[in-house]
Amino acid sequence: MLKIEVCLSPQLIHLFELKGKIVVVTDILRATSCMTTGIASGVAKIKPVATLDECRALKKDGYYTAAERNGEKVEGFDIGNSPYSYMEERFSGKKIATTTTNGTLAITKSTDADEVIIGSFLNLSTVANYLINKGKDIIIHCAGWKGNYSLEDTLFAGALVEKLESGFELGDDASFSALTSYKSAKNNLLETILGSSHAKRLEKHNIRKDIELCCTIDKYNTLPYLKAGVLIKK
Amino acid sequence: MLKIEVCLSPQLIHLFELKGKIVVVTDILRATSCMTTGIASGVAKIKPVATLDECRALKKDGYYTAAERNGEKVEGFDIGNSPYSYMEERFSGKKIATTTTNGTLAITKSTDADEVIIGSFLNLSTVANYLINKGKDIIIHCAGWKGNYSLEDTLFAGALVEKLESGFELGDDASFSALTSYKSAKNNLLETILGSSHAKRLEKHNIRKDIELCCTIDKYNTLPYLKAGVLIKK
Repeated sequence: MLKIEVCLSPQLIHLFELKGKIVVVTDILRATSCMTTGIASGVAKIKPVATLDECRALKKDGYYTAAERNGEKVEGFDIGNSPYSYMEERFSGKKIATTTTNGTLAITKSTDADEVIIGSFLNLSTVANYLINKGKDIIIHCAGWKGNYSLEDTLFAGALVEKLESGFELGDDASFSALTSYKSAKNNLLETILGSSHAKRLEKHNIRKDIELCCTIDKYNTLPYLKAGVLIKK
Repeated sequence: MLKIEVCLSPQLIHLFELKGKIVVVTDILRATSCMTTGIASGVAKIKPVATLDECRALKKDGYYTAAERNGEKVEGFDIGNSPYSYMEERFSGKKIATTTTNGTLAITKSTDADEVIIGSFLNLSTVANYLINKGKDIIIHCAGWKGNYSLEDTLFAGALVEKLESGFELGDDASFSALTSYKSAKNNLLETILGSSHAKRLEKHNIRKDIELCCTIDKYNTLPYLKAGVLIKK
């Protein structure tokens, strides 16, 4: 039977065999919610990079630049890490290079997999349907917060496990616990995530609207897909 | 307010500030259940060591030796990793050196803390009462399985958080999720843990009796406490 595993942090991804599998990277607050929104809103390409310098350097190749550290937009970049920024008309058909505290690292650490796709509540069912049709083993890679566990990413993992559990075996304890956590939170998803430590850290940045958007299930039917280091529409 | 955090794996412990805090190490299947049983049964000292060689070398210092790898007793050592072995009369008043796949590593990685104590379901309330009386910040350090997340250790963390939550702030998402997981499993604790991947791995070793013992809450009122690298009765 096909297997689904959940990696709770990029600090644990080396413990997983990625070859032959599809990795779903998730960073709900807010990197993969931004990527889903961007690709759904017509951004042609999104290139995730690890450092501010790499991101800045891509300006000369025609990229708009997005940079966030510790929840804030970094000075000198076009945008930060709000999904609403990724909806702006000026980015339609254009390229964005992005670097964030957690999400971009999780992507760059997943590239040994057969495929890397981007998951968020915004495209939950689209991700699930893609995985059901592909019929490969799956790892859900939670970006976490600075290497540690984060609730909102685990809840997304649980939501995806719930969609898949009829066709996949739960391959580890983390997938079981993520599913349990999601089931107990699903009727109060926004409130639960607002109570997470990450949301509390972001409180001072006044982004409640962002968080509400990031908790919206199936707003888009778009699948961002990593090809040669760049996210495009599948 | 005093704070409680949960570290889900020894691979994440470097992300935590240990100084000034009490670390509770837990490896339910079976290292810390063995340690609790041993100290409660009259073993004078238990010395956790990382490698088989270190463990073997302690024979000349009058230690009995206990060694487990991948769930099995290692050839040439006195006992393996069954809590029932630690009850044997011949160990009363004696010293045991022990090395296991996960639990001893979690202990050796915790020694920057002010205090390191041993937690298991067997001494849950004793651990909780000690922590309430000490009034320091707490980290529950889950030994996991070969670096990755394990359900049974997280459930113990949740059980301990439940005992402490009225007097301590939940300091991270992991403590919140551990509590949620425990609350949803507590009425079927044994069955839930028998369904964990670790218990399934151990199935072939025919240790159902061990697992049942490890899931017994408050069988002992003993607190194993690390002093100069050796566990003694507090």
